[in-house]
Amino acid sequence: MGKRVYNFYAGPATLPVRALKEAKRELLDFYGTGMSVCEISHRAKEFQAVIDEATALLKEIYALPPHFHVLWLQGGASTQFFHVPWNLGLEGKPMAYVNTGSWASAAIKEARFFGEVKVVASSEDADFSYIPREFEVGPDASYLHITSNETIGGVEWIEFPDPGNVPLVVDASSDFLSHPIDWTRIGLLYAGAQKNLGPAGVTVVIARNDLVERARAKKLPTMVSYATHVDKGSMHNTPPCFAIYLSMLALRDLKEKGGLGYIEKLNKKKSKLLYRLIDGSNGFYKGVVRPDSRSRMNVTFRLPSEDLETACVAEAKARGLIGLKGHRSVGGMRASLYNAMPLKGVKALAALLREFQLANS
Amino acid sequence: MGKRVYNFYAGPATLPVRALKEAKRELLDFYGTGMSVCEISHRAKEFQAVIDEATALLKEIYALPPHFHVLWLQGGASTQFFHVPWNLGLEGKPMAYVNTGSWASAAIKEARFFGEVKVVASSEDADFSYIPREFEVGPDASYLHITSNETIGGVEWIEFPDPGNVPLVVDASSDFLSHPIDWTRIGLLYAGAQKNLGPAGVTVVIARNDLVERARAKKLPTMVSYATHVDKGSMHNTPPCFAIYLSMLALRDLKEKGGLGYIEKLNKKKSKLLYRLIDGSNGFYKGVVRPDSRSRMNVTFRLPSEDLETACVAEAKARGLIGLKGHRSVGGMRASLYNAMPLKGVKALAALLREFQLANS
Repeated sequence: MGKRVYNFYAGPATLPVRALKEAKRELLDFYGTGMSVCEISHRAKEFQAVIDEATALLKEIYALPPHFHVLWLQGGASTQFFHVPWNLGLEGKPMAYVNTGSWASAAIKEARFFGEVKVVASSEDADFSYIPREFEVGPDASYLHITSNETIGGVEWIEFPDPGNVPLVVDASSDFLSHPIDWTRIGLLYAGAQKNLGPAGVTVVIARNDLVERARAKKLPTMVSYATHVDKGSMHNTPPCFAIYLSMLALRDLKEKGGLGYIEKLNKKKSKLLYRLIDGSNGFYKGVVRPDSRSRMNVTFRLPSEDLETACVAEAKARGLIGLKGHRSVGGMRASLYNAMPLKGVKALAALLREFQLANS
Repeated sequence: MGKRVYNFYAGPATLPVRALKEAKRELLDFYGTGMSVCEISHRAKEFQAVIDEATALLKEIYALPPHFHVLWLQGGASTQFFHVPWNLGLEGKPMAYVNTGSWASAAIKEARFFGEVKVVASSEDADFSYIPREFEVGPDASYLHITSNETIGGVEWIEFPDPGNVPLVVDASSDFLSHPIDWTRIGLLYAGAQKNLGPAGVTVVIARNDLVERARAKKLPTMVSYATHVDKGSMHNTPPCFAIYLSMLALRDLKEKGGLGYIEKLNKKKSKLLYRLIDGSNGFYKGVVRPDSRSRMNVTFRLPSEDLETACVAEAKARGLIGLKGHRSVGGMRASLYNAMPLKGVKALAALLREFQLANS
């Protein structure tokens, strides 16, 4: 095995080494079947055990109340952008969205295909650099949709809003499983796996029972309806077996490490380390997000010039710190600190940033 | 590594051992990056090289004319069941379908959400035991849809129909890449990977340019439109990276073995071996499909009683011949002989069937 690097990519992203090693060990002989997990029928009892264990671990780690269903789907959050309004939009009841950046905007665009959309708050006035706190949803909304973490902009809802009786729908793709969640606030939560959970190719939807019933009452294509996937245990058709399997291995790792209590503390520590360095750099590094809205997952910052940004990304790469270039739509630098990024990796990045500042200011 | 079995599952199914070994070898260090292919950004040049190579191999192996696009999507054929009519259905022009069994029926059901469906032929009258040959499509159809191989029933279109100027759309999930295709007949062809190509979790769509333009002219959610995925090179959002990567390794293997000329010959040989045995068994084994419609991929047959079927499946399993139980909806036995099933495996099955007959008749 070659030297592992520290991978700061925004997703697909770094995964627990233990999970990868286990997947490697049994890639040609899964659970002693003489087959790969990529070859065995999804109807075989050995694969049923995988999806059952993944679901049980997710429920346990998230302390999910029993009236929530866990679905293992395909297509990414971008597919949920049109499945959510199709399943949950109600005739004559606007679908409420908060616009906090690139991903919220993409979700809003797709919802407009399915009915009236009301953008109840937006931080576009300040280049999406903060999370809006004061807004009215109104009791007649079909649901309220938020993007709990904007991977590109680097803003995060530290506390979720409380829209009363209106169901809260959360795109949690990039802070999934990174901290405990108060499920009394949630109607439906979805996430692509490829940041905090597993490899790309599986999308988790956690849906409250009444919203599954709301979907059931609508006339929808089979693969769109959440009711289908609840009734068929996420196996109406062949699920993305390997992606679910590797997610299960990563969930085992998360549980053994101490679950969400442990991981939230670690994630706070990692992000604080970088934000303190940025704030203490006499303006050499500049955070682009209002301090109360800073993401613990994606730390975005600028340097005095684009040339210095390019040089810093290259310097980091030379030291095995990979994926620090900001998203092409916003520029700058971005360090993604998902669950599987160890503190050691962030310390190595902090050391590089300190040295780079000394050498260039 | 444990003893490999012969895997006759209908999908997910057996894969080339060489591809699995290569995936295993570099699972923690992909292309010398110090990361897994499950961890690297899909925007990294190393992953771009994977999707480019997979696409180039598929085009080369299939001898695809340049006016066809290859898309790597998610959601399985079941998702295409509603994406196809949404993309390709035209106002006032019925969507024509041939009903040859379980999967064609499922495709028909979803198409009805999007407009008028005309079932131009059906073999339901004989329990879906044959491929209808004589039918009229009419020049006004949006398209004609067929299921080139019915995985459950075991019927296969040996020659595709010619609907003239009406585009032919093919669900080729279970005989994808198993024989050469005359692309002058095809408008769009789609397939879940998990039978003849790779692991579950990626769906290939091969679309002729004029049908992509037909989709572009419609107002569709972003993730539904084929135009999106053509324009974005299958990376509008994060693709199922590992599934594409393993498919690429399997395509390399297929090319090195001799491509479709080689594989078609092998597939004919394997299926003939079993059908001859069935036909020569004095009625102990009974094929359920009309000889001219027999699938080269899924050989379905019955024994004199369900007890004997259960005993035969168990006996086979004890010898490392796995997955021979027929689909729960039709019963009997089924041997799936996809590309990666070696002739040796089929010979081992034939030996078992001969011995089982001797011992039980």
